[in-house]
Amino acid sequence: MYGAVIHGAGDVRFEERPDPVVVEPTDAVVRTVAACVCGSDLWRYRGIAPVPKPTPIGHEYVGVVESVGREVTSVRPGQFVVGGFRTSDNTCELCRAGFQANCLHGTGYEGCQAEYIRVPNADGTLVATPDVPDADRVPDLLALSDVMATGWHAAVSAGVTPGCTAVVVGDGAVGLSGVLAAAQLGAERVIAMSRHADRQGLARRFGATDVVAERGTDGADHVKELTDGLGAHAVLECVGTQDSVDQAFACARAGGTVGWVGVPHAGTLPLEDMFWRNVGLRGGLAPVRAYLDDLLERVWSGAICPGLVFDLTLPLSEVGEGYAAMDERRAIKTLLQP
Amino acid sequence: MYGAVIHGAGDVRFEERPDPVVVEPTDAVVRTVAACVCGSDLWRYRGIAPVPKPTPIGHEYVGVVESVGREVTSVRPGQFVVGGFRTSDNTCELCRAGFQANCLHGTGYEGCQAEYIRVPNADGTLVATPDVPDADRVPDLLALSDVMATGWHAAVSAGVTPGCTAVVVGDGAVGLSGVLAAAQLGAERVIAMSRHADRQGLARRFGATDVVAERGTDGADHVKELTDGLGAHAVLECVGTQDSVDQAFACARAGGTVGWVGVPHAGTLPLEDMFWRNVGLRGGLAPVRAYLDDLLERVWSGAICPGLVFDLTLPLSEVGEGYAAMDERRAIKTLLQP
Repeated sequence: MYGAVIHGAGDVRFEERPDPVVVEPTDAVVRTVAACVCGSDLWRYRGIAPVPKPTPIGHEYVGVVESVGREVTSVRPGQFVVGGFRTSDNTCELCRAGFQANCLHGTGYEGCQAEYIRVPNADGTLVATPDVPDADRVPDLLALSDVMATGWHAAVSAGVTPGCTAVVVGDGAVGLSGVLAAAQLGAERVIAMSRHADRQGLARRFGATDVVAERGTDGADHVKELTDGLGAHAVLECVGTQDSVDQAFACARAGGTVGWVGVPHAGTLPLEDMFWRNVGLRGGLAPVRAYLDDLLERVWSGAICPGLVFDLTLPLSEVGEGYAAMDERRAIKTLLQP
Repeated sequence: MYGAVIHGAGDVRFEERPDPVVVEPTDAVVRTVAACVCGSDLWRYRGIAPVPKPTPIGHEYVGVVESVGREVTSVRPGQFVVGGFRTSDNTCELCRAGFQANCLHGTGYEGCQAEYIRVPNADGTLVATPDVPDADRVPDLLALSDVMATGWHAAVSAGVTPGCTAVVVGDGAVGLSGVLAAAQLGAERVIAMSRHADRQGLARRFGATDVVAERGTDGADHVKELTDGLGAHAVLECVGTQDSVDQAFACARAGGTVGWVGVPHAGTLPLEDMFWRNVGLRGGLAPVRAYLDDLLERVWSGAICPGLVFDLTLPLSEVGEGYAAMDERRAIKTLLQP
């Protein structure tokens, strides 16, 4: 089969790779229907994270089960499935506590931007859809594999509750998904921080009630103007840079919480301010499996269309261009079709 | 009247000061029955925080209401009262959210290690006991003014729930109060980290099920041995130094939370570790008023005796020796009697 391999900064190639097979009795092999490029893939593409050797890449996918190991009971060949960006047994103590991304037996994948994918821990990772979906529903389902679940984790971690005011820092695919999550979780006011007209538009479609275009302290000041001088109860930090983290804390009210899901490239937090104002920080790697049943139901019923974050669709064979388009900000998020 | 004034590092004097009077119609004046010295007072005593000019000091007290302004309705002269270490109106949006230490109209005090205290926001700050307490109950009530409520805030912020495992970093008066709080809030296992036999003893009396004497990574390794290699669900950070903060995060399991209440003198947090393991941080300045009714009931019924953290009682006139004893670790916490 063919799949994407990153060889170094700026260099993602579509190459022949070994066909994945069932290795453990708990494995499944999935034929990919759609995969995509993650903002976190760009850290390596941009040379910010190292690439010591050519490495299969990608961790988001939907597809059809091709084969399963003898111990797999919850999915069967022919079913359409969604899986999170890390595998989990969904039975260990950490999974049962709702932190499946930290599963004691969890694994990553050997590159999901590929025609076939080996999925360890299939029972604890894959969720089958009620039926094979229409093609136009595929992007929405694919979004659940990472980006939508990550936005949801930001909102849950930030403590979004019905009636609260939420701010979303970051207007990439995760930030936009965070807007959708905050609105779905009942925030009365969802303030999207975005400078780009197209992203502002999608944020509003996802439920943003306000848009703040300024960044940094100007942006935080604007948020405070909108919130009686207090700031937001819940702030979703969906970028991970020092600037965005600082902006997030500056937007939080006393007693509020920042929920962060952007892989941190920040060096420091405003510790004194956090302490004196009782502003908390929660979040991290999203436990996709914890949210997947709920999110799948919302997609299946048509309540949410998180696939709108995909604004570029390419054949999997053009995966390199998919990276370039996101790197150069010509696309928010690239969907790849084998 | 007479009260304590700090003149500089190591220099706390008992001096004549103006008699407090009702200034605002929402004020009360309280005749102090007992006051005490806080670990945070020691920052100035030790020269770590500046003392630009002679300043009345102290923020913990119980006493009898001497007089009230015309708008005060919830307490009356003659009542025995407890007040938190900051005043709060208990009606603003932040108070209603349970963050009274961040009250929009909150104030500090002009020195509570004194014979009389002016209490702004009397209605939102003071809670009267059902009756004038016996003398032997006074230390327990005094502890509610700060140290016990702060330990409670650590436990609440760390997310202590029935059945969980809690670790308490710090065996000072706040840490010991945190042990008591975690036990009261239903933690099945409360691991106190302490090297001192007398403090270990009090920790066990307060409900510690285990004591870990090692510090740093050795201490965290011991905690993991006690918790199936996972670490604790809830970690109460009751010191505020870089070492104690690092130790706290090292003791937390994936998905766990550190609740911090020690004024932070730490420079950094282990951000990557927090992110990848979904370890959160909450807490800060304790909202005493939020917990006061509940804690008062627990003291009044005899369910808790938080006053056991006081191991030195002195006349208020010897306040300087009270500081010296705590500074030199001859006392955990000093109670002062006018």
